[in-house]
Amino acid sequence: MPVYKAPLRDTRFLLNEVFDFPSHYQNLLNGGEATPDMVDAILGECAKLCEEVIAPLYHSGDEEGCHLENGEVRTPAGFKEAYDAYVAGGWQGLSHPVEYGGQGLPMSLGALKQEMLGTANWPFSMYPGLSLGAMNTVMQHGTEEQKHTYLTPLTEGRWGGTMCLTEPQCGTDLGQVKTRAETNADGSYAITGTKIFISSGEHDLTENIVHIVLARLPDAPKGTRGISLFIVPKFLPGEAGSLGPRNGVTCGALEKKMGIKASATCVMNFDGATGYLIGEPNKGLECMFTFMNSARIGTAIQGVATAELAYQGALAYARERRSMRALSGTKEPGEIADSLMHHGDVRRMLLTQKAVAEGGRALIYLATQYADKMIQGLLTNDNAEYDRWDDKLGFLTPILKGCLTELGLESANLGMQVFGGHGYIKEHGMEQIVRDARIATLYEGTTGIQALDLLGRKVLLMTQGKAVRDFTRQVAKFAVELLKQEPAMRGRALTLLRLCAQWNLLTLRIALTARKQRDLVSTASHDYLMFSGYAALAYSWALQEAAARKRLRQGGSESSDFYKAKIATSDFYFARLLPRAKGHAAAMAKPVRSIMGLKTEHFAFD
Amino acid sequence: MPVYKAPLRDTRFLLNEVFDFPSHYQNLLNGGEATPDMVDAILGECAKLCEEVIAPLYHSGDEEGCHLENGEVRTPAGFKEAYDAYVAGGWQGLSHPVEYGGQGLPMSLGALKQEMLGTANWPFSMYPGLSLGAMNTVMQHGTEEQKHTYLTPLTEGRWGGTMCLTEPQCGTDLGQVKTRAETNADGSYAITGTKIFISSGEHDLTENIVHIVLARLPDAPKGTRGISLFIVPKFLPGEAGSLGPRNGVTCGALEKKMGIKASATCVMNFDGATGYLIGEPNKGLECMFTFMNSARIGTAIQGVATAELAYQGALAYARERRSMRALSGTKEPGEIADSLMHHGDVRRMLLTQKAVAEGGRALIYLATQYADKMIQGLLTNDNAEYDRWDDKLGFLTPILKGCLTELGLESANLGMQVFGGHGYIKEHGMEQIVRDARIATLYEGTTGIQALDLLGRKVLLMTQGKAVRDFTRQVAKFAVELLKQEPAMRGRALTLLRLCAQWNLLTLRIALTARKQRDLVSTASHDYLMFSGYAALAYSWALQEAAARKRLRQGGSESSDFYKAKIATSDFYFARLLPRAKGHAAAMAKPVRSIMGLKTEHFAFD
Repeated sequence: MPVYKAPLRDTRFLLNEVFDFPSHYQNLLNGGEATPDMVDAILGECAKLCEEVIAPLYHSGDEEGCHLENGEVRTPAGFKEAYDAYVAGGWQGLSHPVEYGGQGLPMSLGALKQEMLGTANWPFSMYPGLSLGAMNTVMQHGTEEQKHTYLTPLTEGRWGGTMCLTEPQCGTDLGQVKTRAETNADGSYAITGTKIFISSGEHDLTENIVHIVLARLPDAPKGTRGISLFIVPKFLPGEAGSLGPRNGVTCGALEKKMGIKASATCVMNFDGATGYLIGEPNKGLECMFTFMNSARIGTAIQGVATAELAYQGALAYARERRSMRALSGTKEPGEIADSLMHHGDVRRMLLTQKAVAEGGRALIYLATQYADKMIQGLLTNDNAEYDRWDDKLGFLTPILKGCLTELGLESANLGMQVFGGHGYIKEHGMEQIVRDARIATLYEGTTGIQALDLLGRKVLLMTQGKAVRDFTRQVAKFAVELLKQEPAMRGRALTLLRLCAQWNLLTLRIALTARKQRDLVSTASHDYLMFSGYAALAYSWALQEAAARKRLRQGGSESSDFYKAKIATSDFYFARLLPRAKGHAAAMAKPVRSIMGLKTEHFAFD
Repeated sequence: MPVYKAPLRDTRFLLNEVFDFPSHYQNLLNGGEATPDMVDAILGECAKLCEEVIAPLYHSGDEEGCHLENGEVRTPAGFKEAYDAYVAGGWQGLSHPVEYGGQGLPMSLGALKQEMLGTANWPFSMYPGLSLGAMNTVMQHGTEEQKHTYLTPLTEGRWGGTMCLTEPQCGTDLGQVKTRAETNADGSYAITGTKIFISSGEHDLTENIVHIVLARLPDAPKGTRGISLFIVPKFLPGEAGSLGPRNGVTCGALEKKMGIKASATCVMNFDGATGYLIGEPNKGLECMFTFMNSARIGTAIQGVATAELAYQGALAYARERRSMRALSGTKEPGEIADSLMHHGDVRRMLLTQKAVAEGGRALIYLATQYADKMIQGLLTNDNAEYDRWDDKLGFLTPILKGCLTELGLESANLGMQVFGGHGYIKEHGMEQIVRDARIATLYEGTTGIQALDLLGRKVLLMTQGKAVRDFTRQVAKFAVELLKQEPAMRGRALTLLRLCAQWNLLTLRIALTARKQRDLVSTASHDYLMFSGYAALAYSWALQEAAARKRLRQGGSESSDFYKAKIATSDFYFARLLPRAKGHAAAMAKPVRSIMGLKTEHFAFD
């Protein structure tokens, strides 16, 4: 059974030595309090909560699952107490405004917290995680009164929140949403319809639940342009923060799922439930998109969390399990056999997990710096600045969500694989990681949707390739600096420059061909996404290796082992994982015919 | 919920048009009765049993699982009746000798049966599947009396069988086996020890269970050279085929697993149980290896079965589910949205499954022809002929077991992915396929073990590269014929020739470097295995495409659609999947240092 230990050493390396968060925070309006000491204290406290209180409920939560009885959902034993401890620590409002009960720290710190929480116990983390979506929606689109009524108890963690988008007939294609909102005499709306796959739709952790619901006004246009957003609380707000009457929104069923069994996935029935319009009529989908990026980064974190937890579990096993002798000769002559650590293929699996966990973590931290700067633009009403960082974040988001969840799933499977047959047995806890990880490539937009979002929307439609040019310029600039300052990384620098050129060339070729063959965008998108992911991870590893080499040159009292391990892992990434990009580059350039050529009716024959 | 339909059209194409099984059978001593009509009748009957009786128990078997009560294991509802129908049809002895109650047909027909049975319901198929292992062991190594006593009831399906190898401290490294055999006065042995992960170790389908057990004689040398093989029946054989006293072998527990829940995975306790030596003392592991290939081909079939079933499920859903419009313009204007079939990335996923299922199936059929010929060598006492086909089969086996189970798992995951969030919900049945498929890369030797078996044992140690040279010669010969006779396949032929050259070159480079750096074998083995798999599948698809083109040229009354679909799928394979081989080729050539360089103690830091 993996025992979670927060990777604080790696986190500090990234914060202080790779991305210089101390300077970053000093440049933020809301970063003044995020001093290195304060950040360190927060990390330490968060690690303690996650390791001691939340992680121990991971396996038992899966075994017990959630139960629906008389419309009420009971979460697994211990979840309520753990949630209370989480709320008591003020963790829910870490990055939200002080005026609504939060601590007002930068958004990036919230992401660090989410990573630890999610690695310790992903299904548990979904309860506060979904609330974040509701909080952000109310914060950006709500009236002052709505913020006062809903945002404060959400930020304090007394209330929970959900996002109600999916219906039985549609998930991705929200233009098909049927849930309707009818006007009440008092200006509120009566919401009627069925939503499915609603995480945290009903549970016993909070006194109230605030549903953010997509529905159609009576006169709404068809399709996506006729969708509005509503706040539908489980209990209507009463006087002075008290709870009013029970609203007509109920949990009809819990879905039986492959994993994340401790997270309540609800069918929610809205039966003329009272709702309040949030944002402008018929602009609901646009409001959702505002925060889609942050929800997707949240899911990308699941990829990192999965790789990290599976790595910790597999590493512990590989160190203690003994089988055969190393090919290069006996390593532990006093033992009946050598430990798995001495077998090349086991090391390959472990290093893959490590490269994904640490490489992905660095990319997440990079993205959260962008998010901090984007919010800075918002707070200072600097639209150009907001757009600049929003664009950068928007480009990275589908890459991180798409690739890190795929590689996280691969890493989870490798975790089982290191255990051999024992990985398949529930008591070792490794198969749960796979089952829980499996959802990540599906929700918040499948990998296919991320691929289309990246290539079709962010790269081609919205920026005509500028998004790639901007990102690769940043990578190339770094590579050129490496050429000047890190002779040992000359090979890495040239690899990065080649990748940048190839990325732009592939984009250009697709853009030109797609003018005549629109289907090319969908046939090339998956390989384009994965190529982009491996390229981004190459940047991540070169950044880390450069920071490690710099530190080793500087010397100092600290042990050099950590930095040498970073360089070795970077070596592994470039030698063993980056070559996969070759296959993706070759595949995406192939004719549309190779995918669209088979007639729809000829996929099967009797 | 996927509804299984046996792919008879594809099977007939492979048997009659790609591999010419009719001629193959006419050249076999035991192939006379396998006339085309007979084979067709067998396929039809087997399909009927699998579709109507066995497949309907797939999902319910997972839901119910197995139960252990008072030492007895109860299989899920319906399993006993389905097993009885299977036995009544004489299916268990299809390919086993008439003198022991079988039908004496070629081994390859047994593999066709196993594929259908396994696709319909893999966990069910494991009960008769494990018996096959016991049957083959008794057939090859048993005395005439042992065959009479055990092989006949096993062949008739009245008794079941198991293979008891793994112990808590060892699976792969069988040299660590501790179970001991002590000599009884009557020449039998008292077997004492604990075996784990014993599939079908205890169940209610048969009146007796024959365990084949690895254990150590009192004076046995240490390690793998001191392991002997024993027959340990649940009930000792009585007079005239009756059952004698209950033996001291009991099921101590059922493992709780990720999947294959309807298959009883038992902890078996041997408590001085009476056992009978089979084969020579201390030669147990060699006896096991004899049949390791066939057990591994059996598991490779699981990869094909998984891809096929997931494909059938995903295809049905993609045809009916509507979401968004095709990028190249509306395809179904009368509907609220286009079906998933019109989206490039969905087609990519479906075609990947199809290419794996059909491409893998063809390779399995090729391997079963080798198995038939190997057995022919055995029956005719022609050692050279036996060795020739044993070598060919031995080379293909780890490639098929390793790659097809990995690609089967990928295909199962793609099946879920086509369903989007619905794929994660149990009621749709797609997640069960993933959970059940997940064991295939673990048991009968993990993928890592297959990789070592291929590169370290079969290629380098046993044949100094000759195994690759032989196989690539066969592929190259075919490619040269294509160049002469199929102008439309000129590109494919050149690709195959390049692959053959690259495969040999990579082998040579590894062989030369590994002389000094033994670890190279284990660091390169995984990428070598996967490269070999993609190369073998390229051969498979070129064979199928050539047969389809030949048939199209000949014309005839039959519809040409099937053959055009084969060509389109081959086009997909070469364009979209084969490029992955580039990444594997690049990775395996990298220095050992990139995997062995990180010190064992530096994989994690506090």
